Amino acid sequence: MQAEIITIGDELLIGQVVDTNSAWIGQTLNKANIRIKRINSISDDAEEIKSQLKDCLNRSELIIITGGLGPTKDDITKKTLADFFGMGWRTDTTVLSQLEMFFKSRGREMLEANKLQAELPEKCLTLMNDWGTAPGMWFDVDDKVVISLPGVPFEMKNIIEHRAMPLIMKKFIQPELYHKTIVTINVPESLLAKKIESVEDSLPSYIKLAYLPNMNMVRLRLTGSGDNDIKQEIDAYAKQIIDIVGENVVVDEDITMPELIFRMLNAKGKTLSIAESCTGGLISHQMTLLPGASKVFVGSVVSYSNSVKHHQLGVESTLFETVGAVSEPVVTQMAIGVRERLQTDYSIAVSGIAGPGGGSDEKPVGTVVIGVSSGKNTVVVRQHFIGDRSHVIGRSANAAFDMLRKLMLEELDE
Amino acid sequence: MQAEIITIGDELLIGQVVDTNSAWIGQTLNKANIRIKRINSISDDAEEIKSQLKDCLNRSELIIITGGLGPTKDDITKKTLADFFGMGWRTDTTVLSQLEMFFKSRGREMLEANKLQAELPEKCLTLMNDWGTAPGMWFDVDDKVVISLPGVPFEMKNIIEHRAMPLIMKKFIQPELYHKTIVTINVPESLLAKKIESVEDSLPSYIKLAYLPNMNMVRLRLTGSGDNDIKQEIDAYAKQIIDIVGENVVVDEDITMPELIFRMLNAKGKTLSIAESCTGGLISHQMTLLPGASKVFVGSVVSYSNSVKHHQLGVESTLFETVGAVSEPVVTQMAIGVRERLQTDYSIAVSGIAGPGGGSDEKPVGTVVIGVSSGKNTVVVRQHFIGDRSHVIGRSANAAFDMLRKLMLEELDE
Repeated sequence: MQAEIITIGDELLIGQVVDTNSAWIGQTLNKANIRIKRINSISDDAEEIKSQLKDCLNRSELIIITGGLGPTKDDITKKTLADFFGMGWRTDTTVLSQLEMFFKSRGREMLEANKLQAELPEKCLTLMNDWGTAPGMWFDVDDKVVISLPGVPFEMKNIIEHRAMPLIMKKFIQPELYHKTIVTINVPESLLAKKIESVEDSLPSYIKLAYLPNMNMVRLRLTGSGDNDIKQEIDAYAKQIIDIVGENVVVDEDITMPELIFRMLNAKGKTLSIAESCTGGLISHQMTLLPGASKVFVGSVVSYSNSVKHHQLGVESTLFETVGAVSEPVVTQMAIGVRERLQTDYSIAVSGIAGPGGGSDEKPVGTVVIGVSSGKNTVVVRQHFIGDRSHVIGRSANAAFDMLRKLMLEELDE
Repeated sequence: MQAEIITIGDELLIGQVVDTNSAWIGQTLNKANIRIKRINSISDDAEEIKSQLKDCLNRSELIIITGGLGPTKDDITKKTLADFFGMGWRTDTTVLSQLEMFFKSRGREMLEANKLQAELPEKCLTLMNDWGTAPGMWFDVDDKVVISLPGVPFEMKNIIEHRAMPLIMKKFIQPELYHKTIVTINVPESLLAKKIESVEDSLPSYIKLAYLPNMNMVRLRLTGSGDNDIKQEIDAYAKQIIDIVGENVVVDEDITMPELIFRMLNAKGKTLSIAESCTGGLISHQMTLLPGASKVFVGSVVSYSNSVKHHQLGVESTLFETVGAVSEPVVTQMAIGVRERLQTDYSIAVSGIAGPGGGSDEKPVGTVVIGVSSGKNTVVVRQHFIGDRSHVIGRSANAAFDMLRKLMLEELDE
């Protein structure tokens, strides 16, 4: 059974908006063992939509469309679908009364364009939208299904989770599909492939290995579908890979670095503070995106200027002239300073040159000094990352989390 | 003239990776007046790639493929393209010697898999990769062009900017296409559409208006192609819209909030500090992603715990019990505290309940108090945002930047 996504909107094609919806839908369906075959991003154009939908219905059983359901004139998806399926219109009174409540509770006048959002193609099933004014729609097309959803990410997610998925699960029952992910750091993709070549060559044809490099990390994903033993079989191959890759394996689950650090800290009831210079708040942001972050994360000082490094973190001012802000002594004092002042068990500190300006022969763009500190130990390492500004910042964050992971593993084992 | 993008990789389909490449390519080509007609994300499967490429060549003149060029066995794009075009192989000696230098300079052994990256389909033009080991490839197919690029974003961007674009510009000369973007805040899409209905209805058929809602902001994009007067004509419609929408217009260019704030501060030589609680570092991160951020941004305190709000920002401890951390008095003291301690001209402070936990009847999830402060004024506003955690955080950041924009406009006009 195959599924496809159609995302509608010129803003995607001219790059004004990044399509994050498709990744989320892919993830969600994948957990239910439904495979997305293609993601198709097309223009707000009725003929394009119809032609794409026709192609998709020839190839796949489930088609999820996002976008173009808003109240404005450039939103043509609903009309185009009614046209495509040759359907008339109906007023959905449940949607209409929900809309009335929505505007009343916000003290806003309900416009004609809003009222029209309760007008739906005759034979579609309504998927109620708890968080917005455009409902989702479910069309049964023989044994296939077309779902149309608003493009606003949190509205779309809510409808899929609470309205569409239960119906999808009921309609399409899937054979077992199993993924196992191994997250590695600091081994380039080609070297990793060389190391695990013997395992890869021994994989049976129904188990697939994918390399997903991102920043200084590579995710290895083993996937297979088959009988009940597939999980056990894939886990055995994963174990072989983990034994070979050794200390460069971060975790054998599909979780992110911040999730892993949060889990490790939370399990031991430990707290974290961060002193960020070149990463400028990214590490703190990644931690605080996690619900419940306050259980482990206390706070940070984004010490972009040397004055803040000195006054808020206690870095000696003379160091900026003698060794410079991007140096082991400064980062050591940043790490200890933030941990002591914010009174946490652990800390991270980062200072570097993210570029494009600011580099020198001695410290080229991409030079980053990273430190982690506990009451017992402070570890500081100088690294050099290749790439543009956002890449250097992102790699620095990953490397910092990994250093903290190692320090915690050492200390918590004692 | 139409272009399409094909992104290859199962990681996109199962949502392990968000496709940011397509948006960047769309933007870049759009600046050169080349329109992306479709973005197609497909599996690492030779038959899928060939079938998709065939469809694309039937519809479009330029096809840009990303992904599947790495050194590992799941990277099949190069082989599939050689097969599709019926080409033999050649060794590109320039690529080979660049690879040798690449590994020598990093002190890494060059593996057989790396050497193979210099083997290219016979009749393709090599697009050198300055930052990685997989070169790009340019295939001339009658009067059409197929370009294959690595999926690693910074490598792909570098090749497009420095290698592919000059050749694309030479090959395809485009008619004038003009975009004008108006960024608005705090007006829901449907209300905005109602306000500017008369302008929208008066637009000629060759000028298109699109609404791009994101968080609490809507971007309005006017687009047209035609003769030399199109710019003047679109600007005149834009002016009508701006007059109607009034103070809810943030800027009449396609720039982001952080870019606007950076530009305003930099023009007047003013500095900024930030105290972040519920936004957890996002506002600082958005500022510091901009090259040269240090000219205006001094630093931040991410005061996630009340202890940090008290010790690092000077918020009176009694307030946490009397009015709570999400309150006007606390945010006022955060804003003044960070500005005074970090010695900046302006400051932003945010404290709120991002959810999913932590809400109460009096302060439900989504309650956010935002403050901005200068030497002369401190303005604090309570807002309520609807949406999930990342949405509340993102909306808070946008609202905070907008409050600072207004404060600066008032004060700098004096």
